[in-house]
Amino acid sequence: MRIAVLRERRTGERRVALLPEQLPRLLAAGVEVSVESGAGNEAGATDDDYRAVGAQVSEDVLTGADVVVSVQPINLSTARQIGEGVVTVSFLPTAEEVPLVRRLRERRITSFSMDLVPRTARAQPMDALSSQSMVAGYRGAIVAAERLQRFFPLFMTAAGTVRPATVLVLGAGVAGLQAIATARRLGAVVEAYDVRESSAEEVASVGGKFVQLDLPPLAGAGGYAREMTEERATRQRELLAPHVAAADVLITTAAVPGRTAPVLVTTDMVAGMRAGSVVVDLAADQGGNVEGSIPGHEVMVEGVLVWGGSNVPSQLPRPASELYGHNVVNVLLLMLRVGALHLDFGDDILSATCVTHAGEVVHRPTLELLGEVG
Amino acid sequence: MRIAVLRERRTGERRVALLPEQLPRLLAAGVEVSVESGAGNEAGATDDDYRAVGAQVSEDVLTGADVVVSVQPINLSTARQIGEGVVTVSFLPTAEEVPLVRRLRERRITSFSMDLVPRTARAQPMDALSSQSMVAGYRGAIVAAERLQRFFPLFMTAAGTVRPATVLVLGAGVAGLQAIATARRLGAVVEAYDVRESSAEEVASVGGKFVQLDLPPLAGAGGYAREMTEERATRQRELLAPHVAAADVLITTAAVPGRTAPVLVTTDMVAGMRAGSVVVDLAADQGGNVEGSIPGHEVMVEGVLVWGGSNVPSQLPRPASELYGHNVVNVLLLMLRVGALHLDFGDDILSATCVTHAGEVVHRPTLELLGEVG
Repeated sequence: MRIAVLRERRTGERRVALLPEQLPRLLAAGVEVSVESGAGNEAGATDDDYRAVGAQVSEDVLTGADVVVSVQPINLSTARQIGEGVVTVSFLPTAEEVPLVRRLRERRITSFSMDLVPRTARAQPMDALSSQSMVAGYRGAIVAAERLQRFFPLFMTAAGTVRPATVLVLGAGVAGLQAIATARRLGAVVEAYDVRESSAEEVASVGGKFVQLDLPPLAGAGGYAREMTEERATRQRELLAPHVAAADVLITTAAVPGRTAPVLVTTDMVAGMRAGSVVVDLAADQGGNVEGSIPGHEVMVEGVLVWGGSNVPSQLPRPASELYGHNVVNVLLLMLRVGALHLDFGDDILSATCVTHAGEVVHRPTLELLGEVG
Repeated sequence: MRIAVLRERRTGERRVALLPEQLPRLLAAGVEVSVESGAGNEAGATDDDYRAVGAQVSEDVLTGADVVVSVQPINLSTARQIGEGVVTVSFLPTAEEVPLVRRLRERRITSFSMDLVPRTARAQPMDALSSQSMVAGYRGAIVAAERLQRFFPLFMTAAGTVRPATVLVLGAGVAGLQAIATARRLGAVVEAYDVRESSAEEVASVGGKFVQLDLPPLAGAGGYAREMTEERATRQRELLAPHVAAADVLITTAAVPGRTAPVLVTTDMVAGMRAGSVVVDLAADQGGNVEGSIPGHEVMVEGVLVWGGSNVPSQLPRPASELYGHNVVNVLLLMLRVGALHLDFGDDILSATCVTHAGEVVHRPTLELLGEVG
């Protein structure tokens, strides 16, 4: 069996699906690995590094490949070069990739989406959304510390004391918690808010102070955007405004993949911050939690710098690839039996992550999306 | 008595000598304060902020001023507008400011240099070189963390562990120790070297590992550059090379104000680092500890980013001004008696920091510099 590691095609994507140091586990399981020339360059891994651990490096990795791995979804023309029954493993946010899903079905490719790894204990080592969110959260806090023209920590000196920065984090998922932890490491005073009151304990565990808003609990246990009425969203913004105004740094992380991010902070709220403050919107790619943020750009709003994240994990390509690669290896090992490809759809992780198989879209929400379910 | 706070003239200087919150101590001592319009803008203090605490704000602060305070030395034309017997307090590195020193003497201005504050316990609250070096050290570590495309801390996740970054700091003075402390806060593994073996304990106290080189102790207790032979410098570079090569981040801080910084790291040594590594040269303004570093620029050397600092404290204008202002207030209070200017040259701090007085250059090393001492 042969696994192909693609060089990423999307602009700005600097990660690679597998790093050289991750191949020994696969090679030991009896598989061969082909790496497309240059695949690891941006993540600091050369073709020779891959060769040194026993991979083949070539310009054409698709011919003869049983499994094709990448970070971003393969593009439509690559899909055309992949044979029937071949397996692909990558991020694959189906709502944004409808034409590709149709192509994968048509080509009878068996595609797995790393976006769909269930959030169960057993699946944790494969949870690429979490691992990449962690990278984004770290990066967000570091970017804020570098852009803010004051100290994060308290400084006590012979000449006097300089107060620490106040950081407000909105959204306390994996990215938010990592941003809190990193800002705390640097000595900032950190407040955080999340609609899920249950996250108060997690916020406290990484050193943050949970902001309690005077709002009724959200009905139901479901997702964010679905539950929030416009009235509640407005009230939430009103109640958050004084916390935003008091912060030197605001980091927003409230994004659900595949959905538009909720606007938590309006331009007026940003303008209410002190001049020289910094806003980091990690949800900018999904439309933004902060009105006016632009992915991949820094804009000034009344003296406040608003940094819009764009593929933030890719800004730390080496460690992001290291974590993603671990996730991918763990998924691949689920598919192997005595060195051969063996897809057991009785496995809840494989069944949950499979999008297309044998000419069918097997992921039900995606089928609904295609309008092919009554 | 009236103190004038100047708006800084030098390109890139964003600090201000006194912030509004520092004025009450002076006003309580019975002095008046005039602030040049716009002086605090870059440090986040508006004219109204100064007015609110009781200062006057005007376009002409020199008329009627008894003491003129600034961060950078005043320029030659300002000196021409200042009357006989007026006091100036600012940084004043005399070796770089010979024409100004002559002008100050000629104008019979009494000038004090914040560069000359002695390093005694009593003078600590006035030690502006230390306070600004602390700002530079913090900034250096944060810049490195933001430029490095990997994590500073160790990350342990369900999918595996990512190793922490290794940071090497050369020079363990105030800036170096602050860089070590900040990198440690962020979880990096930190090594540090200084020619003064006595600094080993200070390095350890902020969490760094002191690098012992196999070199004979430096003869004498004096300054750095004077003692170091070229042979010893070469040997030191040879012995440092493997430490540099092993580091993800190199931060150099070996600078003595007014002297050219020693070249600790050659281009070959930088090229020996892994691609993607980051070098921060905080001594770039003094000629640089790293061959090829350029103040105010980032250059790539064989895949390694070399960041050359340029007036680094000014990159954090608010806290840098806060600390500098504290230092200046403490110096000014030495000059006051019952609300009037009273210069007691029996005070060792005032005598040490005075450069010109009553038409004479009273700072002996500066006189030597002018070639006016046999």
